[in-house]
Amino acid sequence: MTAKTARVNDDLIRALRAVVGDRVSTSAVVREQHGKDESYHPPHPPDAVVFATTTREISDVVKICAGRGVPVVPFGAGTSLEGHVAALKGGVCIDLARMNAILSVNAGDMDVTVQAGVTRKQLNEHLRDMGLFFPIDPGADASLGGMAATRASGTNAVRYGTMRDNVLALTVVLADGRVIRTSRRARKSSAGYDLTRLFVGSEGTLGVIAELTLRLYGIPEAISAAVCPFPDLKSAVETVILTIQSGVPVARIELLDEVQMDAINRYSKFDYPLQPTLFFEFHGSERGVVEQVETVKGIAADCGAGDFRWATKPEDRNRLWQARHDSYYACLALRPGAKALATDVCVPISRLAECILETRRDIDQTGLLAPILGHVGDGNFHVVVVMDMNDATEVARCKAFNERLVMRALAMDGTCTGEHGIGYGKIDFLTVEHGDAVSVMRAIKMALDPQNIMNPGKIVRV
Amino acid sequence: MTAKTARVNDDLIRALRAVVGDRVSTSAVVREQHGKDESYHPPHPPDAVVFATTTREISDVVKICAGRGVPVVPFGAGTSLEGHVAALKGGVCIDLARMNAILSVNAGDMDVTVQAGVTRKQLNEHLRDMGLFFPIDPGADASLGGMAATRASGTNAVRYGTMRDNVLALTVVLADGRVIRTSRRARKSSAGYDLTRLFVGSEGTLGVIAELTLRLYGIPEAISAAVCPFPDLKSAVETVILTIQSGVPVARIELLDEVQMDAINRYSKFDYPLQPTLFFEFHGSERGVVEQVETVKGIAADCGAGDFRWATKPEDRNRLWQARHDSYYACLALRPGAKALATDVCVPISRLAECILETRRDIDQTGLLAPILGHVGDGNFHVVVVMDMNDATEVARCKAFNERLVMRALAMDGTCTGEHGIGYGKIDFLTVEHGDAVSVMRAIKMALDPQNIMNPGKIVRV
Repeated sequence: MTAKTARVNDDLIRALRAVVGDRVSTSAVVREQHGKDESYHPPHPPDAVVFATTTREISDVVKICAGRGVPVVPFGAGTSLEGHVAALKGGVCIDLARMNAILSVNAGDMDVTVQAGVTRKQLNEHLRDMGLFFPIDPGADASLGGMAATRASGTNAVRYGTMRDNVLALTVVLADGRVIRTSRRARKSSAGYDLTRLFVGSEGTLGVIAELTLRLYGIPEAISAAVCPFPDLKSAVETVILTIQSGVPVARIELLDEVQMDAINRYSKFDYPLQPTLFFEFHGSERGVVEQVETVKGIAADCGAGDFRWATKPEDRNRLWQARHDSYYACLALRPGAKALATDVCVPISRLAECILETRRDIDQTGLLAPILGHVGDGNFHVVVVMDMNDATEVARCKAFNERLVMRALAMDGTCTGEHGIGYGKIDFLTVEHGDAVSVMRAIKMALDPQNIMNPGKIVRV
Repeated sequence: MTAKTARVNDDLIRALRAVVGDRVSTSAVVREQHGKDESYHPPHPPDAVVFATTTREISDVVKICAGRGVPVVPFGAGTSLEGHVAALKGGVCIDLARMNAILSVNAGDMDVTVQAGVTRKQLNEHLRDMGLFFPIDPGADASLGGMAATRASGTNAVRYGTMRDNVLALTVVLADGRVIRTSRRARKSSAGYDLTRLFVGSEGTLGVIAELTLRLYGIPEAISAAVCPFPDLKSAVETVILTIQSGVPVARIELLDEVQMDAINRYSKFDYPLQPTLFFEFHGSERGVVEQVETVKGIAADCGAGDFRWATKPEDRNRLWQARHDSYYACLALRPGAKALATDVCVPISRLAECILETRRDIDQTGLLAPILGHVGDGNFHVVVVMDMNDATEVARCKAFNERLVMRALAMDGTCTGEHGIGYGKIDFLTVEHGDAVSVMRAIKMALDPQNIMNPGKIVRV
């Protein structure tokens, strides 16, 4: 243990064991696993890892840490991308994976209450027989607590919204160990400050999300997915913009450029044309889906699209979306041993074509291996910049590219992160984006976590 | 001026005049107008009223007040219902009605930026020719700043959400006069704490909302409205619950009991049957609306509904919804000279029938003149308790009824206010509803407004 974490000592470990028994570990392997996410950011292992099973245990662990001024870092599935779980100041990581109970499904109200470690796939498997589903889908099989903490979204957000829109209430352990519930199960409320939305996206810096009540949706009567190639990026993006502006309630509309299509073909054994491509999904009644498809096919044809290739059988649809979700790994597989810097800007839809085309020119000029893909219906797209971490010059070039991309998006009234969050990777961009508003965030942080023990060094520096 | 407002003196008025010229008033009439809303709560006039025209002026006025520790109370259209604008500790009211500029419409992005004093009707008149509309509709022609401040919703919320879901960004003047923008125009973002949602619903207690960027929607291709009577309250509410659970994207579904229908018939010159009644509106494509109507008519018939009476012409629809919106005044007209206590609970939809039927029994047993109506698709309903303010016993009986109703809703995992807000009228209910979470709200309030000058005495006591 380093000097900075001197307060993590045998006495603390004894206190933790008194709460969770042998579910505390200081082994190097376990600590290493918990100090890193899926990004290129360097690992920062915590000094100890606790595997919590109840809200009460989280509360007791936080009280022990608070009494000693020791940092607390919550850990879900470890699939974040901006160093969210890095224990920058050491301390105790609370692993929530064993808090994986689905506590209650209220089918009549279309809501569910879960422990924070339940993953989205686990939840949807549980719900399937009830004809219900939870739509938010960031690709990775993330924990729902982690998804709330990072305000995740993903492919379905264009129709169903993000975690912001689909969390009804949270049970949160505060920085002093007190437990609050942020809201009731009613669908709307004007009762005081919106604490639910404050904790959604707070990345563990204001408290630990222990339980969530989520909105559910009926599985649509009809679902239809299609893949459609375009002659160039511009015509694909134009199709997206016109589709959104037409008001068609498309469930998914995803862009993949030709480099990304190549990566997916190789990784997922597809044979799609190497062209900029849109993946669509339509949800609705049988008639409603037909109507949506007609409208979108008309728009796409006007923009010069190729043929729609349909995936109607569930197994074909699942294979298609699995391939889309594996795109990050498909990019990494293009260059074995490399890491990826996944960018995440989001701009108003009217600026999307301009932003993507300028970015593509930048990639070409800079000479990067950097497929483009994204949830373009929201104006959100990613560039997966594949880089050799051992080549400092290349890493610097990739980071400079990301910075140019962020500045481009901000100049278009966009954001530096549509869905990945700030972590510590984007902490400086947050200030560029929000200006004086960051001081308001800092004031809130200091009010709710005066010792700065909750995931310190993330979102705002104190 | 009373002792409590001694800091409002000639020096302050001179300072205000230096900023806004003659747009500051200390006349008794103007102060009286600004100390009350549409509720039964007694008036508390401010010591001075400033009519602001720019964000800069608001900032300068707040700085002047902050330097002297003088309270600041924002005032929109004065249509709130829980004493939100009452100057409980005196101070300066900032009237925003002259900040009525529509600053920019981005049709391609379906958003608009307005000054806080623009009203919803003004905005929709401006948008109509562009084929766009803003759906949130609390009945009164409230200001959009006030609607954001109280997290308003109304008849369309079941489909389009509340102000929470439809504000993209706010320009806010903080308690020290600094001006921040809470977000960019991008449709989603994970960049730090959700300040937009924190200020939506903050009722002027954390800052003054000066400008808003709002989501817009395309005017639907087809709109159809209908009125349908039911043999009893239970069958009407069952129809609502089954409609929501079926996933039909109904745009409006409003319940009015037979007492309310009588009030509306008298006030708006209709001849609807004196039965519990649902008002529906359907939005979509021509085919989509037909499909929705078929489903809902089937559900209603199974529940024993009478015939649907259709309003398809725009003028008929407008007359219908105007009557619905005038229901509060229609109730007041039942008993000239009386005031109304408008309750506002919201419960999970599965508990709605139980909550409404128990409430109706309570009304009958207590012997109140108290029509029931509401945005039942959200689980939100109002009882307009008409009372003689000069009869202290009656007022006490009405307040006790409201308290029983709130406790009933809370016991069903509901909220004391679906859309009216806390103001000072529900400040004690907030604590019952949120428990320890109120201490988090108080910590935020004290962090952002350490002098407690922003609309003091509302939401949380400091």
